[in-house]
Amino acid sequence: MSQTITSPSNSAATEAPPQQVVERMQAIVGAENVLTTLADRTVYECDGYTLAKTRPDVVVFPQSTEQIVAIVRACRELNLPFLPRGAGTSLAGGCVPVGGGVLIALARMKRILEINIRDRYAVVEPGVVNVWLTNALKPFGYHYAPDPSSQGACTIGGNVATNSGGPHTLKYGVTVNHILGVELVLPDGRVITCGGPVEDTPGYDLTGVIVGSEGTFGIVSKVWVRLTPNPQAYRTLLGVFDSIDDATNTISAIIGAGIIPAALEMLDRTMIRAVEAAFHFGFPLDAEAVVIMEVDGLEAGLQEEADRMEAIARAHHAREVRKASTEAERALLWKARKQAFGTIGRLGYPSYCTQDGVVPRTRLPEIMRFILTTAQKYHLGICNVFHAGDGNIHPILMFDERDPDQVQRVLAASHEILAECIRLGGSVTGEHGIGVEKIDFMPLMFTPDDLHYMVRLRSAFNPQNCCSPGKMLPTAGGCAEGHTVLQTKPARRAAV
Amino acid sequence: MSQTITSPSNSAATEAPPQQVVERMQAIVGAENVLTTLADRTVYECDGYTLAKTRPDVVVFPQSTEQIVAIVRACRELNLPFLPRGAGTSLAGGCVPVGGGVLIALARMKRILEINIRDRYAVVEPGVVNVWLTNALKPFGYHYAPDPSSQGACTIGGNVATNSGGPHTLKYGVTVNHILGVELVLPDGRVITCGGPVEDTPGYDLTGVIVGSEGTFGIVSKVWVRLTPNPQAYRTLLGVFDSIDDATNTISAIIGAGIIPAALEMLDRTMIRAVEAAFHFGFPLDAEAVVIMEVDGLEAGLQEEADRMEAIARAHHAREVRKASTEAERALLWKARKQAFGTIGRLGYPSYCTQDGVVPRTRLPEIMRFILTTAQKYHLGICNVFHAGDGNIHPILMFDERDPDQVQRVLAASHEILAECIRLGGSVTGEHGIGVEKIDFMPLMFTPDDLHYMVRLRSAFNPQNCCSPGKMLPTAGGCAEGHTVLQTKPARRAAV
Repeated sequence: MSQTITSPSNSAATEAPPQQVVERMQAIVGAENVLTTLADRTVYECDGYTLAKTRPDVVVFPQSTEQIVAIVRACRELNLPFLPRGAGTSLAGGCVPVGGGVLIALARMKRILEINIRDRYAVVEPGVVNVWLTNALKPFGYHYAPDPSSQGACTIGGNVATNSGGPHTLKYGVTVNHILGVELVLPDGRVITCGGPVEDTPGYDLTGVIVGSEGTFGIVSKVWVRLTPNPQAYRTLLGVFDSIDDATNTISAIIGAGIIPAALEMLDRTMIRAVEAAFHFGFPLDAEAVVIMEVDGLEAGLQEEADRMEAIARAHHAREVRKASTEAERALLWKARKQAFGTIGRLGYPSYCTQDGVVPRTRLPEIMRFILTTAQKYHLGICNVFHAGDGNIHPILMFDERDPDQVQRVLAASHEILAECIRLGGSVTGEHGIGVEKIDFMPLMFTPDDLHYMVRLRSAFNPQNCCSPGKMLPTAGGCAEGHTVLQTKPARRAAV
Repeated sequence: MSQTITSPSNSAATEAPPQQVVERMQAIVGAENVLTTLADRTVYECDGYTLAKTRPDVVVFPQSTEQIVAIVRACRELNLPFLPRGAGTSLAGGCVPVGGGVLIALARMKRILEINIRDRYAVVEPGVVNVWLTNALKPFGYHYAPDPSSQGACTIGGNVATNSGGPHTLKYGVTVNHILGVELVLPDGRVITCGGPVEDTPGYDLTGVIVGSEGTFGIVSKVWVRLTPNPQAYRTLLGVFDSIDDATNTISAIIGAGIIPAALEMLDRTMIRAVEAAFHFGFPLDAEAVVIMEVDGLEAGLQEEADRMEAIARAHHAREVRKASTEAERALLWKARKQAFGTIGRLGYPSYCTQDGVVPRTRLPEIMRFILTTAQKYHLGICNVFHAGDGNIHPILMFDERDPDQVQRVLAASHEILAECIRLGGSVTGEHGIGVEKIDFMPLMFTPDDLHYMVRLRSAFNPQNCCSPGKMLPTAGGCAEGHTVLQTKPARRAAV
């Protein structure tokens, strides 16, 4: 089997997986929890980043920590690489099984094990969908704060892997700020527990470094999350602008004024058109940008904050500032924002690539102009919907994946936009991770010594690099030696 | 020199350090920045935890990252252990030079390098005293949020090493929540930068794992910290209680009611007596406990929050609820809290040992009763002043260090209290770290597999364990092999 995987053409992945592997996995989880056919495995060849594809040799659905341990141990004996997968909503190829091997799909570990309102934590399995937890907490007046736009599909385990953000990250922080502890199955089959319900635990902050490690340390099998009381009240405004600069300057000015909004989200004209075509919210089709501005907290004082935001928007030439005067109107605004990605199909392109860069907030006008220029240069459709308050941009490059020239132009434009983010003092990912897509940027952001110590850190947990090889760090080694380079690159070229 | 250090009696440390070492260090930092006499080195034999003492062979004061690099490289060549020290306010022996060697005192790296209000960060050298930064920020209406009681003396570098808390941790979080990045000199002399002013950086969250690593990864040479806007207003109340249970139940009830106070600090009767004897604040000497309750934020709505806290205190039989009606009155209350430790001398004991445990907030009544019983059992004076809102207790055991029997009783009582914290679902340190004092508790809190991976993590940065040997983890090895056990234990026994 190890020869099959080392084959640079990954031809084996088109063949049936070796019977030995299938039988081992079926013995652990039962035949109904193992996928082996070509059609089934093709479903798992990529995630939301469709420009890198590698078929796993087998897909396994464990239902307990013990089963994950048994799978990992079997992989070790069989010298197979393995990696975890949540809902596959990653946008940077984090779920691509580089080097083939065993894809450990956690979607069937979906139980909420405990909800403890008094001590404000919950314990969940990694496959619990983000919004399920918030739904389960509704009767108690609590929620789970990180709310990615994909929260209706993405899993808490996946959120932990990529340290996901969301619209309310601006006030409430990203995933790492809400994870109290994790249970981790190490690549050697040992199980460790880091953190837990008590906030102050001694020892190294392993929880913090595991969150965002993109599966390169092991498989998270249980998660202790912090619960957040629902705000007493909200004020949600929609600023309508005739220029992108006015919109981004408004955002920078609101933060500069010392207001800490719960969210500051921006949609550009093309995005407004798509959302409007799908949902008919009544957004002004001729506006250059709209900004959703939300403050939350105690009712007392909240209107004053909202009034200040409105005044700032107007001072920056907002054409109009609409107010969500009911909970239904607020829900509608957020539906527009969160389902924006789902409406892109309306714009007439079969594929899109969502980029994820960060710039200092004050550089938003510059990067938005750069994105526009780059789109024109490469004759690409680009629209924008993003966490403006965090300086976390999401230009969406639209194309037809079947046209190699368009794919090439998307890759080139993406690269230029991300390089510009670095030049402006930002970074190449705000919340989607490095995955396989952005590995080449790591040496631009870190010194060789920085990267050397990241690899050493990974080796502390994952010495053979059999767990999630070819992810995050621009290094080969161990199980993935050879594949990292040989298999992601051909996949990209194949798409081209 | 390496023989000298391996000597179990540490006798060398009473002799003059080898000329070779002194000359190397003087060549790097100048003679005026090297301490070599017995008297000078004796000052650095311990920190706030006086029950473990080991004299360093030499104390060196670098003034730049380059000098730290040169010192570390020289130590490596000379096969000498080394460790960083801030102000020495650690209460768990974190600054004790286990195994002798070179103590790298960072107190002269005390420059605030940059204050950037717009992007809300500052860059400081590790020797900057915590309160200096907040003082420097006053004109801008900002502060550095973590405020240990020792903030007038402790350094930001030391805060990073132990992940310090403080009274306002309850609302604002501990040090790790306010550190954006660090520059770290590794034990091999390489320098890496983790994080920085941009919040979203890809790669592993090395900053998070370095904060709280107690110098076991390397020497932090520069720190990027987050700045926090000053609250618009405060309400500070003092609840006076005739029973400890009423006071702790009030605390639990305030949090349970969904209020997020800025601080909830408790002083018991003995502590009140000491504070009163020193400062004459007018605290009621016959009360069993007082609780400082503070809310902060926007003026609007704040009084309502304060009123709710007062009502909860009264519902739990507070005899009286005093209000700080002016900024001067508020400052006085905080002076009482923050200088409480300094007043313990009034109670007539020459030494005290401040313990640091954590329990779930709802278990506070139990642990307070246990502390009282344990004090009686061992005939020790014990007083309490602590971060009640966090469940972070600080029983202060008072004794005479010259009396071996008293020392023995203090150690036994400390051990029992901390073991009880674990039994109640808590931990043996909230903010002071493991240091040398609490190493023996680590196997009670972590499985062998957990500890195995902590050691592997340390080895990723500090493979020879020459940097801060004998700290945090119950393992010998490398530079410290032999000393870890041989030198801290005799030091304790010597004190006994």
